[in-house]
This record gives sequence, structure tokens and C-alpha cells, in this order.
Amino acid sequence: MQLLIEKIKNEGKVLSESVLKVDSFLNHQVDPELMFEIGKEFAARFKDEGITKILTIESSGIAPSVMAGLQMNVPVIFARKRKSLTLVNDLLTANVYSFTKQESNEISVSKKFLQEGDQVLIIDDFLANGQAALGLAQIVKEANASIAGMGIVIEKGFQDGGKQLREAGYKVESLAIVDSLADGKVTFRQDHKVEEIAR
Amino acid sequence: MQLLIEKIKNEGKVLSESVLKVDSFLNHQVDPELMFEIGKEFAARFKDEGITKILTIESSGIAPSVMAGLQMNVPVIFARKRKSLTLVNDLLTANVYSFTKQESNEISVSKKFLQEGDQVLIIDDFLANGQAALGLAQIVKEANASIAGMGIVIEKGFQDGGKQLREAGYKVESLAIVDSLADGKVTFRQDHKVEEIAR
Repeated sequence: MQLLIEKIKNEGKVLSESVLKVDSFLNHQVDPELMFEIGKEFAARFKDEGITKILTIESSGIAPSVMAGLQMNVPVIFARKRKSLTLVNDLLTANVYSFTKQESNEISVSKKFLQEGDQVLIIDDFLANGQAALGLAQIVKEANASIAGMGIVIEKGFQDGGKQLREAGYKVESLAIVDSLADGKVTFRQDHKVEEIAR
Repeated sequence: MQLLIEKIKNEGKVLSESVLKVDSFLNHQVDPELMFEIGKEFAARFKDEGITKILTIESSGIAPSVMAGLQMNVPVIFARKRKSLTLVNDLLTANVYSFTKQESNEISVSKKFLQEGDQVLIIDDFLANGQAALGLAQIVKEANASIAGMGIVIEKGFQDGGKQLREAGYKVESLAIVDSLADGKVTFRQDHKVEEIAR
């Protein structure tokens, strides 16, 4: 998605060979117009999958998911990382390890929001090791619902989550794939770029 | 806002005299179309305030804020409840006590996203004791920016946050004000209802 790639080029900060900071438009400050376009792009890429629900994880997955939900006309569920006092019973849960935060979180979704027959689109802001996506997939399976695909805003192509998920048979659509952060520079996957330019 | 009041009537669950559960459309599962309408309503109510930024708090404030930001054409910043490894320096912080979760969180915003001259609209999903709104206000003040107003999706009118904030001089706009949850029933503030019907 060219608009997103340009935004990453202009505003992304390479903090190390594995960390790309995009807090000016995605995961701290949020650019609503860009989120709207991202939602449109997800809606286009998954239009034939009969999506009935979008599942994401708090907090950075919420903005792109809600915009996708608006355009696909389906509800969005965000998995919570911790239980709250008003949300304790009948939970579907999974454990997710975050390499960035170096901690494990139990994520949970209320059972009543996912049913057998649901075609679920999993959306997240980043795909690196695939831990969050796999945790969300586990929750969908626990609900006996189907995983219709995974929509990722930024995939770190140099980490193995994307490979793992595609090999497991999931339809993974990443709007930008970063192949390297070496030398303080963002290198995007070439075939992706070509595809984008052809759009 | 009549659409929101109807949604609360149809889907809200009264768990106790102080807890209203709206997890089917606002803070766990999210109704994107309703969020879009909420965003439109906030944009209308604050159209003369010269808003330059929206500030909210993760996670449930994000969806209504991003929709408001889309329609007001301004960036949204969501305060984080904990520091992450990729976001450590130059933070504006405040402490917020959550009566629901019975815990205190440090919330933080990166200094670079709020400047002197910014006219900030604070948005949150609930207003009860006003702790979150006051914490966000403190952060805006630390940045020497101005608080242009506060947009609340659901105000618990039987708790004193709204009174406190209005007495402090803030323009507080709540899209639904719940005056009582007694006897398992949601009672909305009457004058608010009348105003809504007149729209």
C-alpha cells in the first residue's frame, strides 16, 4: 500500500535492526485518515472471504480494525490483555509473549462474541514473530469459528511470523513488508512494492 | 444522542448500582457504525473550538476518538497506561486511579505530540469519578497546551466527575448521561433526553 509505505519512509524511525518506531501515525499518535485508507484496503483484500467479525488486540490494533469494520460492515472485537472486574466469566484465552515488551500476557475474549459459523478476520498493527496472531487464532479456534484471514499493517519480513502463518495455510495480507532495518534504513519487500505501484 | 441511548437501552447490562456493561458495542466488541456516528456528534459539538489534537486513553477511548479525528481532520493521541521499551524518553505523565479495576496506572504521552498552542479535545468512553479525564488534563497542562473541551460517550451522572469537571470550567459534552442504575434499570438524564429529541 503505497500511502502507508510513504508514511513509513517519511515518519518511521529505525531504532535498531529489529525495531521500527511508527508512533507518529500508528501506535501512539494515530492518523485517522490513514487508518481509513488502511481499513479500505483490508476491506478490498478480504472482500470475497465472507467476513462476519474482525478480531484484534488492544491497543494498537483497534484503530485500523474499526476502520476496516466500518467498511466491511461487521463488528470488531478487541482481545484484552488483562481481565477487568467487569469482564470475568466465560472467557476464551490464550497466552501471548511480546518480544518488544519482554513479557507474557494472557489475552482474552468474551465467549459470547465469537460463535461457530463466524468467519473471522484477524487484524494487527505489526507482524514479527507471529505470537499475537497465533494467540488470536487460538481464540478463534476455541470458539469453533473459522479464521478467514489475517490483515497486518506492517510485517517485519526479516522475522519469521509471516512465513510461519502462511505455511500454516492462513491468507496473510500485509500492507507493508519491511525486509530490513539494517544501517538505519527501511528496506521494503520489492515484489510488494512492484505490486503496489501496479495498483 | 438518541442512537446511543437506544443502543444502551437495548444492549447495556446493569451489573450493579454503579456498573453498566456495554461490552457488546463500546469496550470489548465495538460497533464501527455507531462509533462513526459518535465521531460525527463530537465533531459537531466541538466544531467552534479550533481543535488541533484529540487526546484519549487506551483502550476503549480509541475507537470513538479515531472516528472523531477522521471527521475533524486532526491527529489522535492515545495515552498509554504502561511504558513500553520503545517509548521511554521525554514523557508527560499523570497518575490515574481506576475504581473499576481498583488499581492506579501511570499514563503517559510522548512530549513531541503535544505542543504549546495545541487546542486539545479530551475524549473518553466513560466519565464516572473523572480520574481519567483529570489525568489527561494534567498531561495537556504539562505540555502548556490548552484544553478545548471533553467529549464523553457515557457519563455516569450519579457520580461526581461531571460536576467536578464542569465546575472547573471545562466544556464537557456527554453523549448519554445515566442518572441511575437502581433496580437494574438505566435511567437517562431527562433534560438531556429532551435536548436530544429536539435535535
